[in-house]
Amino acid sequence: MKEFWSDRIQNITPYTPGEQPRDRKLIKLNTNENPYPPSPRALEAIRQGTGESLRLYPDPAGTELVQALAEIYGLETDQIFVGNGSDEVLSFAFQAFFDRGSEIVFPDITYSFYPVYANLFGIRCRTVPLREDFTLPVELFLGGNDGIVIANPNAPTGMETGTDGIRRILEGNPEQVVIVDEAYVDFGGESVVPLIRDYPNLLVVQTASKSRSLAGLRVGFAFGQPDLIAGLNCVKNSVNSYTLDRLAIAGATASVRDVDYFDARRRWVMETRERTAKRLKALGFTVLPSKANFIFVSHPAVSGRELFSGLRREGILVRWFDQPRISDFLRITIGTDEEMDALGTALARLTGMEGLPV
Amino acid sequence: MKEFWSDRIQNITPYTPGEQPRDRKLIKLNTNENPYPPSPRALEAIRQGTGESLRLYPDPAGTELVQALAEIYGLETDQIFVGNGSDEVLSFAFQAFFDRGSEIVFPDITYSFYPVYANLFGIRCRTVPLREDFTLPVELFLGGNDGIVIANPNAPTGMETGTDGIRRILEGNPEQVVIVDEAYVDFGGESVVPLIRDYPNLLVVQTASKSRSLAGLRVGFAFGQPDLIAGLNCVKNSVNSYTLDRLAIAGATASVRDVDYFDARRRWVMETRERTAKRLKALGFTVLPSKANFIFVSHPAVSGRELFSGLRREGILVRWFDQPRISDFLRITIGTDEEMDALGTALARLTGMEGLPV
Repeated sequence: MKEFWSDRIQNITPYTPGEQPRDRKLIKLNTNENPYPPSPRALEAIRQGTGESLRLYPDPAGTELVQALAEIYGLETDQIFVGNGSDEVLSFAFQAFFDRGSEIVFPDITYSFYPVYANLFGIRCRTVPLREDFTLPVELFLGGNDGIVIANPNAPTGMETGTDGIRRILEGNPEQVVIVDEAYVDFGGESVVPLIRDYPNLLVVQTASKSRSLAGLRVGFAFGQPDLIAGLNCVKNSVNSYTLDRLAIAGATASVRDVDYFDARRRWVMETRERTAKRLKALGFTVLPSKANFIFVSHPAVSGRELFSGLRREGILVRWFDQPRISDFLRITIGTDEEMDALGTALARLTGMEGLPV
Repeated sequence: MKEFWSDRIQNITPYTPGEQPRDRKLIKLNTNENPYPPSPRALEAIRQGTGESLRLYPDPAGTELVQALAEIYGLETDQIFVGNGSDEVLSFAFQAFFDRGSEIVFPDITYSFYPVYANLFGIRCRTVPLREDFTLPVELFLGGNDGIVIANPNAPTGMETGTDGIRRILEGNPEQVVIVDEAYVDFGGESVVPLIRDYPNLLVVQTASKSRSLAGLRVGFAFGQPDLIAGLNCVKNSVNSYTLDRLAIAGATASVRDVDYFDARRRWVMETRERTAKRLKALGFTVLPSKANFIFVSHPAVSGRELFSGLRREGILVRWFDQPRISDFLRITIGTDEEMDALGTALARLTGMEGLPV
C-alpha cells in the first residue's frame, strides 16, 4: 500500500467524522445534527427541482443562494461564497490564504479538522492552550503568526469568545487572514459578520448543516470582503466548477429565506439545551456554558470513557475525544426533549444517582 | 485585490466552464449535457430521499452507490471511489498521486482543466502534440515523466485511443500513475476498466453527468486497485468527509442500477451523432470520428469564430476554443434530433449551402 501515493499524503492522518450508524433505533447525539426536519419550504423547493433539469449543470456560482444570503444578512453578493459544506469552504480558505511553510495558529482544543487541512497543504500549525476554564486567551493571538483560525462558538466546548475579543484579534493581526468558523453561531452566539465591513482580513464561515437541519444536503457559506471571496472562487474554480448541485442550491435558498421556521427551531434547541444543562448539573455534572447545539460535560466520579461506553450500551451515541485535557468530557448533541430525557435517565443510572450500579 | 491571497493562487488561471444561460429558449449544445432526462428511477429515489432524513449527515463513503457500481461493473467495493463530479475526483487524484515539482504529461489538445489542477498543486506540465489527424502518438507517452493523464475519448476531439494503445502506455510507465479520464466513454468508446486488474498504476475516472443525464447532481467515479482508491480517500477525508449529499447518492445509485434506460438513451445519442455527422459532411464540414456525445467539426470556407458567432445569433450555443490548431473547429454537443435539425439548417445557412448570405 501507498506505493503510488504522492509525498504530500504519505504521512497525513485524515479527519475521522462521527459514526453514522445504520441502526436507526439508536439515539444519535454524536454529530451535532439538528433534531428537527429541514424547512418544509426547502423540501418543497427540492421536490420542484427534481426533474428533467437535473440533466443540466448547475449555476457554478450558486447565484440564487448567494442572493438570498445577501438579502437576509444585509451583504453584497461579492461578499459571499457558497460551497459543498463548511468543511469544503474551510479547505478552500486554507489553500487561498495560507502559504506552504507558513505558520497558522489555533487553540489546543478546537475542531480537529484544522490540522488535517494544514498537513495536506503543507502549512505549519501552532496551538495555543485555552485557559484552564476553556476560555480563549485572546492576548496570545495578537501577532507572530501567518494566519488564525478560531471556531466561535468553539467545538467541542461550545464556549463563545465575544465580539470584542475577536475584534482585538483582527486588529492584532492586520496582515493575516483570521478565519472565524461560526458553524454553531445560530444557537445563541453573537456573529461577527457585521465586522467584515471594517476588517478586510476577516473571513466568517457558516453552514446549513446544523441550524438549518441540512447536514445531508452539504451546503456551507463564507462571508468576507471581495478580495477574500475572490480568493475562494479562484481555488474553487481550480478544482471543481460546480461544487453545489441543483438540489442543494434550491433547498438551501428556500431554507435561508424561511426565517420564521429557522428562528423557531433554533429557539427550541436552545431551550432544550438549557433544560438539559440544568438536569445534568443536578446530577453533579460540570456543564460548560454552551452557545452551540451541543454541551460539553464531565462528571467528578465517572470517567469520560466509562460514560461514553455506558451510554453506548444503552443505545445512546455521544462523542468522546481521547485526547489531553478533555478525555473526561463528553460532547452531547442537543436532540429532542424526549431524547434528552432518555439521556438524563441513562446518565443518572451511570452516575449512581438512581441507586443503580454504575 | 489579491492582498491576502497565498502565493499558490497568485498567478493561476482557473478553469472557465461553458456558459449556463438563463434564457431557456436557446438551443444549448455547449457543455455536453445529455438531451434526455435522468432515469425516472433516479428521480423517484431523490423524491423518496427528500424528507426529514436530510437533517442527518450522508454516509461519508457513499456505500450504497459504491455497491451498485461494484455489481454493475463487476468490481470489488475497494476498487471504487465516488465523489462530487469527476472534476473533483480528478482534483483529488492529482493531489494523491502527483508530487509538487514533478512533471506530468498530457496531449496538447485535451480537457483544459488538467493544467489548472497542476498549477494549483505545484505540478509541472508537459504537453505532447497530438498527430496532425488528432490521434494520440502513443509512442511519445512511454516513460520520461512522473504521471500521465489521457482523456479517452479525448475532449474536445471526441476521438478514441484503443485499449491496445492504453495498455502500451500503462506498460511503458510502470512506476507512474496513468489517469484515464473516461467522461465520454459510454457513447461508443471501449472502457479500460477491465485493465485495472492487471495494472496497479491505472486509475479510470468516469462521471454521471453525461451518459446518465445527471450533470445537475454532481457525481463522479474512479476505478482502480485498492492502493489508488485508498489514496483518493486519504485526500477526500482531509478536505471534506461528506462530498456527496444524500440525494446525489440516492439518485446516482438508482441511475446506475437502471441499465435498460441507460443503454437506450446512450444509443439514441449515438444514432443522432451519426446522423448529424453525415449531414454536416454533406455540407462540406470535416467531422472528426467521435465516440463521445459531441462532435468536433470545421469548415473549409468559414472560420470557427464566424460559425460560433453565427450560431449564437441564431440562438444556438456551441463551444469554440480560441487556441492553436483548433481555432477553426466547433465542439457541438449532440442534442435531440430536433435540436440537431435546427443546427443543420443554421449551419447550411452559415456556409452558404442554402443560397443565403454567410
